[in-house]
Amino acid sequence: MRIDGRDFRTIWLDEDGRGVRVIDQRRLPHRFETLALANAEALALSISDMTVRGAPLIGAAAAYGMALACLEDASDAGLERAGAMLLDARPTAVNLRWAVERMRRRLASVPAGERLDAAYAEAALVADEDVAVCEAIGEHGQALIGAAGRPGKPRIDILTHCNAGWLCAVDWGTALAPIYKAHRAGVPVHVWVDETRPRNQGASLTAWELAKEGVPHTVIADNTGGHLMQHGQVDLCITGSDRTTRAGDVCNKIGTYLKALAAKDNGVPFYVALPSSTIDWRIRDGVAEIPIEQRAGEEVSHICGLDDDGEVRTVRLTPAESPVANYGFDVTPARLVTGLITERGVCPASEAGLQALFGGEEQAA
Amino acid sequence: MRIDGRDFRTIWLDEDGRGVRVIDQRRLPHRFETLALANAEALALSISDMTVRGAPLIGAAAAYGMALACLEDASDAGLERAGAMLLDARPTAVNLRWAVERMRRRLASVPAGERLDAAYAEAALVADEDVAVCEAIGEHGQALIGAAGRPGKPRIDILTHCNAGWLCAVDWGTALAPIYKAHRAGVPVHVWVDETRPRNQGASLTAWELAKEGVPHTVIADNTGGHLMQHGQVDLCITGSDRTTRAGDVCNKIGTYLKALAAKDNGVPFYVALPSSTIDWRIRDGVAEIPIEQRAGEEVSHICGLDDDGEVRTVRLTPAESPVANYGFDVTPARLVTGLITERGVCPASEAGLQALFGGEEQAA
Repeated sequence: MRIDGRDFRTIWLDEDGRGVRVIDQRRLPHRFETLALANAEALALSISDMTVRGAPLIGAAAAYGMALACLEDASDAGLERAGAMLLDARPTAVNLRWAVERMRRRLASVPAGERLDAAYAEAALVADEDVAVCEAIGEHGQALIGAAGRPGKPRIDILTHCNAGWLCAVDWGTALAPIYKAHRAGVPVHVWVDETRPRNQGASLTAWELAKEGVPHTVIADNTGGHLMQHGQVDLCITGSDRTTRAGDVCNKIGTYLKALAAKDNGVPFYVALPSSTIDWRIRDGVAEIPIEQRAGEEVSHICGLDDDGEVRTVRLTPAESPVANYGFDVTPARLVTGLITERGVCPASEAGLQALFGGEEQAA
Repeated sequence: MRIDGRDFRTIWLDEDGRGVRVIDQRRLPHRFETLALANAEALALSISDMTVRGAPLIGAAAAYGMALACLEDASDAGLERAGAMLLDARPTAVNLRWAVERMRRRLASVPAGERLDAAYAEAALVADEDVAVCEAIGEHGQALIGAAGRPGKPRIDILTHCNAGWLCAVDWGTALAPIYKAHRAGVPVHVWVDETRPRNQGASLTAWELAKEGVPHTVIADNTGGHLMQHGQVDLCITGSDRTTRAGDVCNKIGTYLKALAAKDNGVPFYVALPSSTIDWRIRDGVAEIPIEQRAGEEVSHICGLDDDGEVRTVRLTPAESPVANYGFDVTPARLVTGLITERGVCPASEAGLQALFGGEEQAA
């Protein structure tokens, strides 16, 4: 996507074709800075310290991490060490494990002397495949946005929650891909951006992405969506998914469920955009079967922003003696989801719907 | 209520029996400071700059403002001027107008030389009546909390939104009054406190109140309540109301509607505590008939908190180029409300329910 008119991905190679460069997402929205990663150690650190985040991007970054490792030691033992170090960077990230294992498999049969080029080629393939999947999601979702227009209403209002934009992937994003496609096609979209407490990925990342691409948008408190839907100010909702059950239940950023309830109550279509890699064929009932991560309380009790002197500062919001709790995700039952937007098309949020598009994949999983 | 073991109201007289003292609510939760108000000008300023806030407290403060005015000029013209100045402090506050008019009526028939004592007596009555109303709400609501206990569950979990505690009234509060009563009676309550973006009245005021009174509580992001209800971690919800229609629709802080939807979806009782002064007998359909105030965008784009040096600082959260919107309230339809807790008892959220308790009041309104 574009930043001030220039095309970017979230991860790319420096001019030497070896060094990896990423956008430092910890600094957004207040600073746009890129960071050079010269070796696998630096890349692992960029994952653990959240310089790069978002499941698809973590996968692509890990693939490049394995390529960087080949610069120093392309032996079986060297790749083993590098893989273990990368997996340690965020132990629960499914895409990280998937990417490291894919790279190990690909390189296992290649002689050590040829591994460097093979590794860079495979990492580029991982990144390009992610772009292709996201772009396909964008194309399938774009039609839904076009269809949501209402006579006499000059713009199409879309509500989104959290950041499922290009910053979480290599390019395009998932939930935002249809919006970018529609906007580039001249559809008059406007996005209500939930700020997404406690980590504020909406207010900091989604708003920044949309501003840089020139997509009209408005940041709102997470409390606001219900009121907007009651008053006809939302034509459709699109969110991402971190994990999707075979029955179409969706685990996504905490608060997604509340918006889905409001959409149902007001007859607003509620779509979830997801790459099929998020489908977990082993589980059916998301509320019962998906454990919800509890994160550090400081994300609720403290917040960071830009002060009057241009410094990024952290301040405490709550009384020092008040406990806080921080649940990272919630589950939206399939009954509240109008449809799933995948790289293979749009389907009902149901076992039959997912089977129709991805039948057979469950055996592979 | 108690602050570190000592009983407080939000407004009281200094030892001379004339000067008025209030808690400076702008400084909470990071500082507890009281402010002396020696004349009607200072009191009007304390209302306009939000040193005191909350409909019932604004009413009591305005009554004391008229008493302070009598210290300087108890003539008809003097009272006229003081009343106009107080009304200007927050032009849309219904309780402010009500209190100023009550004081004017009370003093109109009193000779100017006797107005000072009469004014202080009437202001004390306004404050004491508010305490009595809130305490009655607390007693009626306490029974509902006691009844929400479940066998084998060691505590009763109550979710609340915004601040409808004693800081918004003279004492006890509305939504928190039943919780204080239950806690003092030894019922093992625990309160989930929605932080209540964008002004964070939950994280700053409700959490502080509960901590000072020693009520177990946990601050959560507004996005969290749905997940907690899906997992049986909320036994009942209690919120306040800024305006209640004759049909039982409730206009309260933005986001209340989303929690009511989640409560309905999960079979969790959703109660609204309100003094009958919030009932607007002229309207029936809250979503259609209640205009929702849009407030300054800075409340969404910026936030203030305590930095590492102990300074209260404001920081920007959103990209400078991203527009924001700030809707202050939303409407929860009566169909989502289990019951209304009033000073005369608990009733269904319906026209029949309100008529049964307050029949005849609509003619007076």
